[in-house]
Amino acid sequence: MPMDTVVKPAIVTCTAPVNIAVVKYCKCHMYPCIVSLADMLPFNTFQRHWGKRNEDLILPINSSLSVTLDQDQLKTTTTVASCRSFQEDRIWLNGKEEDINHPRLQSCLREIRRLARKRRNDLDCSVDMGCLSHKVHICSVNNFPTAAGLASSAAGFACLVYTLAQVYGVDGELSGIARQGSGSACRSMYGGFVQWIMGEREDGKDSVAQQVEPESHWPDLRVLVLVASAERKPVGSTSGMQTSVETSSLLKHRAKSVVPDRMKQMIEAVHKRDFATFAELTMRDSNQFHATCLDTYPPIFYLNTVSRQVISLVHQYNRHYGEARVAYTFDAGPNAVIYTLQQHVAEFFHVVRHFFPPDNNGKKFLTGIQVEPVSISEELKNAICLEPMPKGISYIISTKTAWFQSKQCEVISVFPCVLKAGPGPHVLEDPSQHLLGADGLPKENA
Amino acid sequence: MPMDTVVKPAIVTCTAPVNIAVVKYCKCHMYPCIVSLADMLPFNTFQRHWGKRNEDLILPINSSLSVTLDQDQLKTTTTVASCRSFQEDRIWLNGKEEDINHPRLQSCLREIRRLARKRRNDLDCSVDMGCLSHKVHICSVNNFPTAAGLASSAAGFACLVYTLAQVYGVDGELSGIARQGSGSACRSMYGGFVQWIMGEREDGKDSVAQQVEPESHWPDLRVLVLVASAERKPVGSTSGMQTSVETSSLLKHRAKSVVPDRMKQMIEAVHKRDFATFAELTMRDSNQFHATCLDTYPPIFYLNTVSRQVISLVHQYNRHYGEARVAYTFDAGPNAVIYTLQQHVAEFFHVVRHFFPPDNNGKKFLTGIQVEPVSISEELKNAICLEPMPKGISYIISTKTAWFQSKQCEVISVFPCVLKAGPGPHVLEDPSQHLLGADGLPKENA
Repeated sequence: MPMDTVVKPAIVTCTAPVNIAVVKYCKCHMYPCIVSLADMLPFNTFQRHWGKRNEDLILPINSSLSVTLDQDQLKTTTTVASCRSFQEDRIWLNGKEEDINHPRLQSCLREIRRLARKRRNDLDCSVDMGCLSHKVHICSVNNFPTAAGLASSAAGFACLVYTLAQVYGVDGELSGIARQGSGSACRSMYGGFVQWIMGEREDGKDSVAQQVEPESHWPDLRVLVLVASAERKPVGSTSGMQTSVETSSLLKHRAKSVVPDRMKQMIEAVHKRDFATFAELTMRDSNQFHATCLDTYPPIFYLNTVSRQVISLVHQYNRHYGEARVAYTFDAGPNAVIYTLQQHVAEFFHVVRHFFPPDNNGKKFLTGIQVEPVSISEELKNAICLEPMPKGISYIISTKTAWFQSKQCEVISVFPCVLKAGPGPHVLEDPSQHLLGADGLPKENA
Repeated sequence: MPMDTVVKPAIVTCTAPVNIAVVKYCKCHMYPCIVSLADMLPFNTFQRHWGKRNEDLILPINSSLSVTLDQDQLKTTTTVASCRSFQEDRIWLNGKEEDINHPRLQSCLREIRRLARKRRNDLDCSVDMGCLSHKVHICSVNNFPTAAGLASSAAGFACLVYTLAQVYGVDGELSGIARQGSGSACRSMYGGFVQWIMGEREDGKDSVAQQVEPESHWPDLRVLVLVASAERKPVGSTSGMQTSVETSSLLKHRAKSVVPDRMKQMIEAVHKRDFATFAELTMRDSNQFHATCLDTYPPIFYLNTVSRQVISLVHQYNRHYGEARVAYTFDAGPNAVIYTLQQHVAEFFHVVRHFFPPDNNGKKFLTGIQVEPVSISEELKNAICLEPMPKGISYIISTKTAWFQSKQCEVISVFPCVLKAGPGPHVLEDPSQHLLGADGLPKENA
């Protein structure tokens, strides 16, 4: 290839955070949850519609609220390269090229390009928007394993939309576009405490995320992820075989009559940093979400034995102290996300370790945990009426970049870092962090 | 004791059936469920009130419907002896004397005696009602083990009330009295298909059971009980520690907006012997009942891993045939009660056996089962995406009168007889069946 025809791509790399809902986003249970970008395929599963609002727009039946987690521990990194020499749009997810034609990806690309064109027209072509006609290469990786059971699609689509926006020079309210990738992705567009206002419009234009408080508002709030893998086979697999599904009548009642008040109470609890109220609302909301899953037909189960033990442990721990010091929440899987305050992290961590004792591998794992050693009083141990579950339970071993998981049937693990609330997506300025090389293809380690 | 002071007691013995609800009775989750008469103690737990209706009267928040099971396999037998020489009312339950002062027992005794007095007054003392001033001895036994997880309190209180009524010569509508012993006991006062109409009156006088169809109406309906014991510790044990409990908001919605229509549909399905509708409504109602348990705070879990596997198995089995041939329902425990039709019993039984293979003990058990051998097609086996659960699963071994249960952590068993719908309580005329001897004390084997 002659030198004068070599065109270097414009490259932008950004990161975006995971968010954990405390008032859950409820949608139709018509298809299995998407927990990562890679789960989306094959996409023909998603061609169905339900209710009155358009499924393609991913509009929720109630508002929701989440905490954005710090990106020091959990994040998606996405590089977008744009170049006139690219023949077509392409995407690589976690090292594997995927089909760019997935409708959710296409929605995000289309909407960002539409905004860019609108901006160009508004500015009367005074800005160089040549890249609008260029194809893009997209490369995205998560720094956390699928095993952690965190919905990586939220961070993934937030990062995609945020990075595309940088490439096309688009700014302003972008959460509505991220929402069209994966509903809860809209909440990952902001840091701290974020609500997703359900909106009322048929076109979904008012269904967007909004920051309630920044991450600095509640500095001693902490998050632990307890990873509990499936017991044997996924028993919630009935969800995979739903051919003629109706939504739960309880789900509709929840959306209409329960969530509106709960959102108000939750926002007030966040404003006031009232942990007891925050904790109780979080646990009630998680339970109600799983109740509505059980009320679909056929029913969907996400909680397993370990999940139920964690729920019981948390209630007994709180009861021992006569106050809510710890709260659990579960998304579409058996893993518990624990909210607590800095002053309770160490003790609760060791309580979990006592009742879910690690096997020998656990020792390695535990050295990585940034929790000071504390001893649990006999009184506390006796107050918690649970048999320790050592058999068939192993810890995940973690290093900074690699995860090794044992293949036993029940696994519980504490995510290796204590997490905090954190900021929204941002641009990485250091070009060495780009996942795509100057040739527009993924670097070897991406 | 001189011969002339020896007084022989008047003795009556009756039996009463178990019933299995297909539209569930919902009540406050303020205290753990009573599943047998013996569970009732200590009674001070029951002194609390909730809502507007009086807890002592045991009034439900919605109507319910059940199938009364044939007494050939499952029944309570109760003997009541009345004698002027008795110093006090006494009761023996399953061979052990219990406190007669439990308020629920007292309610039943008081109400029956009140009816008897009313009858005496109405008849102007023309009948010998001398026994009204006599104390009674009560002896009650179940022919089924607690391990079967069947709510024996329904059969127990129905039998108590029915037998007392014979002793005191009372007849007419007695289900309202049985209800005051244990809510669902009112439904065991009738055979076949029975609804408990919730009623509206504050005094509960219109909250009574009513036969929808007799047992002869649907002769090919069959019932199997799949016994699955707790996995480790009872994980639903949070229910035991509830100090400040509110009822679920979903529970209220269910009672008000879901059950009224469902009752109509279920009654129509029974009238028409429409199994597909009966099955779907039964499964939906069971799931919704457990959803409301999960929505209480702290949440209550009754279903365990085995329960969820049975649910999945049933849905996959039905899906394979493109019709609902089998339905599950779960009460306050992990055991499944399966409704099916005679023509599907053998195959479904063997499917359960395939996916929950018995250990060596199971062979003994299986010989007792009255199910013809059938082979399951490979096609059916492959259609059901479940891993067989042989480990930690053992069958209960049954003979006619004794049960032996292994102590492994997970137990699944098929109740040893295929059950049918059956008649209501009746009197045993053979004096050799009395549980109390001429001395008013339990016979040795009672």
